[in-house]
Parts: sequence; C-alpha cells; structure tokens
Amino acid sequence: MVTHGYAKGRAKRQEIIETAMLVFGERGYNASSMLEIAGRCGLSRAGLAHHFSSKESILFAVLTWRDRKDRERFRAAGAKLSDGLAILRGMVDLARHNATVPGLIGLYTVLAAEASSPDHPAHDYFVERYARIVKGTQAALVSVQQAGHLAAGVDPWVYGVALTALMDGLQLQWLLTPEKVDMAAHLRSAIQNIVTVDFDEVMTG
Amino acid sequence: MVTHGYAKGRAKRQEIIETAMLVFGERGYNASSMLEIAGRCGLSRAGLAHHFSSKESILFAVLTWRDRKDRERFRAAGAKLSDGLAILRGMVDLARHNATVPGLIGLYTVLAAEASSPDHPAHDYFVERYARIVKGTQAALVSVQQAGHLAAGVDPWVYGVALTALMDGLQLQWLLTPEKVDMAAHLRSAIQNIVTVDFDEVMTG
Repeated sequence: MVTHGYAKGRAKRQEIIETAMLVFGERGYNASSMLEIAGRCGLSRAGLAHHFSSKESILFAVLTWRDRKDRERFRAAGAKLSDGLAILRGMVDLARHNATVPGLIGLYTVLAAEASSPDHPAHDYFVERYARIVKGTQAALVSVQQAGHLAAGVDPWVYGVALTALMDGLQLQWLLTPEKVDMAAHLRSAIQNIVTVDFDEVMTG
Repeated sequence: MVTHGYAKGRAKRQEIIETAMLVFGERGYNASSMLEIAGRCGLSRAGLAHHFSSKESILFAVLTWRDRKDRERFRAAGAKLSDGLAILRGMVDLARHNATVPGLIGLYTVLAAEASSPDHPAHDYFVERYARIVKGTQAALVSVQQAGHLAAGVDPWVYGVALTALMDGLQLQWLLTPEKVDMAAHLRSAIQNIVTVDFDEVMTG
C-alpha cells in the first residue's frame, strides 16, 4: 500500500511537471499561475502544494527533467565528444527532432527570453546553459579543426557562439511560421559552409 | 488652454508608452498589468483608461512608436534599398546601436517569443515583422550578388533567413551575458564570410 501510494505520488508529480511545461510554454513562466497548473491536473491549490511548494520549484523540476531527457537522447545517438563532426551531426539531428516538439521549443524560447532579466528565477540556469552549449560547440569545432576539416579562416570560438545563436534564431522564426523555416536544413547548410568535407556523407556515414 | 491640455495629454500618452515598454521588457507582455503601468506613471487605473482602453492597445502603441523610430534611424543613416552592401552595413550599425538599448532588445526578445503563440495579440504583428526583415535581408543579398560581390554558393534566400536568425540568437546570448557577446562583431564576421569585398573598407567607405 505504501509502495502503491508512492508510485501514485510520483506519477502525479510527473503529470504536474508535464502539464506545467505546457502552461509555461503557452503563457511564459511569469504569467503562469499555480492555480491554472493545479486545475489542469485536477488538483486544488492545496493539493498541488502537497507536491510543489512554489511555481519556482515546478519550473526547476521541468528544467531538470528536460535536461535528463536531452542527455539520454544525446547518449543514445552515440555522439562522442572526441569526434567533432559527430557532434555537429548531432546538432542537425537535434534541430530535426526539435521540429517535432513545438511546445517544448516554445517553452525554452519564452523562458530564455524572460530569464535574460537578472531577477528571473531561471536567470542563472540559462546563463550556465548557454555557457555549456557554446563551449560544447566550440570544442566540437576545435576537434574538427584538429582533424583538418575546418575551412580556413573559421574561428572555432567565434563560430561556437554563432552556430548556437543561429539555432535559437531559427527556432523563433520557425515557431512563428513553421511552414516557412526548415531548421535542420538551415543548420546543415551553415555547417557545410565552414567544413571542408561533404557533410551529407558525414550525415549518412 | 485647449492646446495646452492637448499637449499635456500627448506628453502623458508618450510617458505611458515609454513606461509600458520598460514594464513589458521586464516581465513580458502576458505578466504585465495595467495597474502597474498606471502606478509607474502616477496614474490611477481610471486615469490610464482615459488614454488607453486596454493593455493590448498600449502594446500596439509601443510597437508603432518603435517602428517609426527605427524607420527614422534607418533613413538618417542614408541606406538605400538599391545598395545591398549599404544595407548590410546598416545591419551591423543597428547591432552596435542595439547594444546601447538593452531594455528595448529585451522587450522585443520576450515579445517575439511570447507572440509565437497564435493567440497572442502581437502574433500577426511579429509574423509580418519577420517576413519584412527576412525579405529586406534577402533583397540586400540579391543586390550584392548582382553587383558580383556575393561569395560563390551563397544562396540569398537561405542567408536572408540565417542572418536574421543569427541577429536574434546573438541578442538572446547578449542579454544573458552582455560582457561576453559582441553582437556587431559577430554579425560583421558572418557577413564578411559571405561577401567577396573587404567589409571593413565598405564599413568606413
């Protein structure tokens, strides 16, 4: 009975996290309310408080859950940090996958924009997130360069920032007009433009 | 007296618009309230209603005002649509100018992200805004190509989308960590990478 209750509690907790993800994605974090999240999970405000003490704690549960999912996805794809081209290929795969989860991309786009305000609860989270993504992209480009596959004059540090920025900007345009923007194709073409190997071959190889 | 009252009313209206711009930029549109905007302008809720009937009407007044300002700035810079390189130079100038107005950039970044939701009041505005910006950038690149200054293999239609996306993504990273991202330098380097003339010479010429 205890185990059953525990499992039920965990399932409800997960339901709250996934519902909150949708609500945050629709309205942004600032305009979302605990009351609405509770209502959409069939809970009273007090019932929700049994699982989460604040909207902020739900936000971090959402971000932690998605980070774990992303790491699992990345590991499953078998990308190794030592192989720069595989990581760039993983970025294009990720862009293709992102096009299947507009709610999630909307969430991160709104949250990252809101979080640029230093007093937003997720400010530090997003500062660290971008530092990590940019660093990972730079490391991939350095590795491509060491293998002799980076075009002349391409600075891995500059392009680590730029490729990350390109991905975010494409997401925004795609969210506004999904039928007009092929995120993966754009990213692939930007990468092809700075590597000296045929990226299509790398993609299928 | 009537004229004086009218001028006073216009000044108050402008004060509301500029205050709302700050509030929207801090919280996003969804989480901003008429009450807070009224309070920060030293008005009651009823006093604010004398000038604007809804939060939505304030939002559109902010966007209209900024669009007019931007057009004036662009005209003052003397960019002609027929000269593609001048327009690209104008984009870099704009990125440099944007780095001096973080509040405004924060506003557009949050609003554009929120507005990706089709039921956001500014959804159509942002869809049209991006269509216009992308089209303008594509036209500039076509003109550079016709003048023989675009690198081989660079598709103006693809890069019109990508340069616009790059600018947005750089803004996001810059808002999060202003000291780490030089938006104008990044944009300049991305443009230099696709044109066959020395962009620095174009910049000062």
